[in-house]
Amino acid sequence: MLAQIDHVGVAVEDMDEALNLYTGPLAMPLQHRETVEEQGVDAALLGVGAGHVELLSPLGPDTPVGRYLERRGPGLHHVAYAVEDIDAALEELRGAGLRLIDETPRVGIRNSRVAFVHPGALAGVLTEIVQPAEED
Amino acid sequence: MLAQIDHVGVAVEDMDEALNLYTGPLAMPLQHRETVEEQGVDAALLGVGAGHVELLSPLGPDTPVGRYLERRGPGLHHVAYAVEDIDAALEELRGAGLRLIDETPRVGIRNSRVAFVHPGALAGVLTEIVQPAEED
Repeated sequence: MLAQIDHVGVAVEDMDEALNLYTGPLAMPLQHRETVEEQGVDAALLGVGAGHVELLSPLGPDTPVGRYLERRGPGLHHVAYAVEDIDAALEELRGAGLRLIDETPRVGIRNSRVAFVHPGALAGVLTEIVQPAEED
Repeated sequence: MLAQIDHVGVAVEDMDEALNLYTGPLAMPLQHRETVEEQGVDAALLGVGAGHVELLSPLGPDTPVGRYLERRGPGLHHVAYAVEDIDAALEELRGAGLRLIDETPRVGIRNSRVAFVHPGALAGVLTEIVQPAEED
């Protein structure tokens, strides 16, 4: 069902500083940058092999990532797995009794379709499934 | 320098429960199981595409993962990137001024060679580099 690790999401307090670290010493190319107003987040996607690191900086304190930073500080925020068919994958996860944050897929960055599984369902790990857009 | 995401490390309180979740609803095959006394940890490696999820359960409270669980609770613990030449990669990271936990590589699970970069050097993310053993 899960094809590969698509990305790890990293909550950062200072996007410029984080971009400097990831594109500098870690030498990851910046592949995409997008502000997702609906999620209250500025996102930057860096490439590493077939996968990515997604840096997430909150647009304000009262956003999901803003509250995460307040509670836990900067660091690993979620892991995302690529799937071919997100509707089928969600159905399987729901059928297994896992608590979902998104009952139906929503649009993620780069026109992907994404859904989150509740961290309480997977031993504390906020887990995303991603069906990349066709052109990927 | 970094070839791909090799794995995400997940700190768990109950290894059996976590294995049931990852091999059951998430359908990841268990590929390897190892107790690393030196690190005070029971590790289980699950496959997802070319990458892995590494479940980590502490052998006791006074171990790195035990202290992590006490402080932060279960969840994402680290991310690891595969490199072809860990000595060269460490040299590059050191040259960029990043604070390393391991100045020289040590033996990881499945006879890989691994080293950790301090989370303080990478905006809160505990980051591992891994040179897989030849037979991988």
